[in-house]
Amino acid sequence: MSLSEFELIRKYFRNAFKDGLDVRCGIGDDAAVVAVPSGMHLAVSMDTLVAGVHFPATTSPQDIGYKSLAVNLSDMAAMGAEPRWVTLSMTMPENDPDWLAGFMEGFSILAKKYSLSLIGGDLSHGPLSITVQIHGYLPEGTGLYRHGANINDLIYVSGTLGDAGLALGVLDGRCRTEEKYREYLYTRLYRPAPAIGLGLALRNIATSAIDISDGLLADLHHILVASKKGAVINIGKLPMSAAVNQQPDAVDIALTSGDDYELCFTVSPGKKIQLENDLKKKFKISCIGKITDGNGIIWQRADGGQYHPKGKAYQHF
Amino acid sequence: MSLSEFELIRKYFRNAFKDGLDVRCGIGDDAAVVAVPSGMHLAVSMDTLVAGVHFPATTSPQDIGYKSLAVNLSDMAAMGAEPRWVTLSMTMPENDPDWLAGFMEGFSILAKKYSLSLIGGDLSHGPLSITVQIHGYLPEGTGLYRHGANINDLIYVSGTLGDAGLALGVLDGRCRTEEKYREYLYTRLYRPAPAIGLGLALRNIATSAIDISDGLLADLHHILVASKKGAVINIGKLPMSAAVNQQPDAVDIALTSGDDYELCFTVSPGKKIQLENDLKKKFKISCIGKITDGNGIIWQRADGGQYHPKGKAYQHF
Repeated sequence: MSLSEFELIRKYFRNAFKDGLDVRCGIGDDAAVVAVPSGMHLAVSMDTLVAGVHFPATTSPQDIGYKSLAVNLSDMAAMGAEPRWVTLSMTMPENDPDWLAGFMEGFSILAKKYSLSLIGGDLSHGPLSITVQIHGYLPEGTGLYRHGANINDLIYVSGTLGDAGLALGVLDGRCRTEEKYREYLYTRLYRPAPAIGLGLALRNIATSAIDISDGLLADLHHILVASKKGAVINIGKLPMSAAVNQQPDAVDIALTSGDDYELCFTVSPGKKIQLENDLKKKFKISCIGKITDGNGIIWQRADGGQYHPKGKAYQHF
Repeated sequence: MSLSEFELIRKYFRNAFKDGLDVRCGIGDDAAVVAVPSGMHLAVSMDTLVAGVHFPATTSPQDIGYKSLAVNLSDMAAMGAEPRWVTLSMTMPENDPDWLAGFMEGFSILAKKYSLSLIGGDLSHGPLSITVQIHGYLPEGTGLYRHGANINDLIYVSGTLGDAGLALGVLDGRCRTEEKYREYLYTRLYRPAPAIGLGLALRNIATSAIDISDGLLADLHHILVASKKGAVINIGKLPMSAAVNQQPDAVDIALTSGDDYELCFTVSPGKKIQLENDLKKKFKISCIGKITDGNGIIWQRADGGQYHPKGKAYQHF
C-alpha cells in the first residue's frame, strides 16, 4: 500500500527529532510557531538542491539528505549563527518511502549533531528537488557579514580548497587521482563538514566572513564587493590536500571549484596573535593574504610574479 | 547577454520591496538577519509549487507569482498571524529574465498589499518549481491551531467553496460552465485572495482554524483529528457561488476540490452573536454545522437524511 503525503510526513518528518523548547508548535498545523529567545536575532538562509544540477542523479539518498542540510548549515557558520531549526520541502518523482527513509538517515546525521528541530515539511510530486531553510540565533550585535573587511585585514581560509571540485572531476572523468585519495575526496564532496564551531568562535573576532560554496575566486570576490576593497593573495599559501596538490592545475582547482564549504574570513592584524594562539589549536586555518585599498584580487606567486587563474567560478546559470 | 544568477537576483529580488525595520540584513549575505519584535512569536510556513503538478504548465508567470505567495499567505491567515517576510527559491529551466519579470509582477501584488519584505532568494537551473517560505508574527498566547475545537462549537467557512476546483474542471474539460462565469472562476483559481484580515479578526474568537487548500472534506478532517472530535455538517448551508451551484455535482465539487484558500474555523456557541454582529459586516462567513463528540463527519441533507460525498480529497501523491 502506498502512503499518502500526510502519512509520509507523519512517518518520516514529524517527530524525526525532538523539538527544542523554543518550538511551540512543530509539524502538523498550518504553520509552525517558534519563540525566538529574547536578545537573539534570527539568521535565515534557504538553499535548493536539484537532481542533475547540484548533485549527480546517481547520488545516494543518504548523501543527498546529508548534503542538503550541510550546505545550509554552512551558511549559518558563515554568519556566526547557532543553527536551531529547519524546514524541508521536497519534490519526488514517485512515492518512494525507501528513498525517503535513506534521505532522512543522511539528513539526521547533521540534524542530531546540532540538535536541530524539523518544524515544517512539504512533500509533493515532481522532479527530484530539495529545499531546506535553516534558522539560527545570533546574539544581538554579533554576526559575521560580508561587508566588514578593512584595509590590511588578514584573509584566512579554513580546511583545504578544491577537494570537492577534484572529486567531481574524477567522477566525470576530467581528472585522475590515485586510488588512495578517492575515499577522502568523495567524503569531501558528499559529506562536507559545515564549519559551525569555527563560525561561532569567530563571532567577535572576524570582520567579515563567507562560506566557500562557489570557489574562493568567486566567494572572496563577494566579500571585496560588499566591503568595497581589494585583496592580495599569496597563492603559495593556499591550503591544499595532497590529492589536489599533485594535480597539474592544482591552484586553479583550489581557486575555482565550488562545494568545499570551508570559510573565508578576515581579521584585523591586531587579532592575529589571539587567532593563531586560540583558534589554531581547534581548527585548521591558514592566512592566505590581506585586504588592500585596491580593486579586485592580485594572485601573487612565490617568485613575486602575478598568477592569472584559468577557468572561472561556478555559474548557477 | 544573459544575466548570471547573481545579476538576476540583484535585478529582480534584491530591493524588490522595501525591507521592514525588523529586517537587519536582507538579500545579499550568507543569511538574512531579522529582529523579531519582543512579545511576538514567529509563525513559519513553506510551500512548493511545481509546474504540471500544482499549476498547468501554460499558466502565466504573473499568475504563478501571485499564487505562490497567495498559498503561503493563506497559511498565515489560518494561524491568525500577521505576515511579515518571505524567502523565495526558484528553479527555472532556462535563464529567462522576461519570465522572471512576469513572475515578480504577480508576486509583488500581494507582497506590496501586505508590506512583506523579501529577505532571501535562491535561483537555480532545473525544472520549473517555486518554494516560498513565509514568516508572520503572532502575539504570544494567541494563534489559531487545529487542535482547539470543542464539542458544540459552531463550524464556519469563509467565502464560497468549489470555485477553484470547478475552474480546473472547466480548463481540463471535465466540467462545463456558462461563458459568463468563466472569468470569475479563473480569478478564483489563479488569483485567490488569502483571508489575512479574517484570520487576524479571529485571533481571540476562534477555537480552531485551517485554510481550505485540499477541500473541506480533507481540511475539516484535519481539525477533527487534531481536536479528537466529530462534526455534523448541514450540506444545505454550504456556501456556493452561482457557477458551482448549477453544476450537477455541486456539493461534491464544494466538498472535495482544493485550492479555494478560504478558512474553516470553529467558535464556541457563546461567541455566535459577537461573530455574526461584528465579523459579518466585513467578511462573508457561513455557519455550516457543529462539532460533536463523535468520530468523523456526518453530512446532513435538508430532509434529515445523510449524504455520502462522492470523490475524495486531493492527494499529493
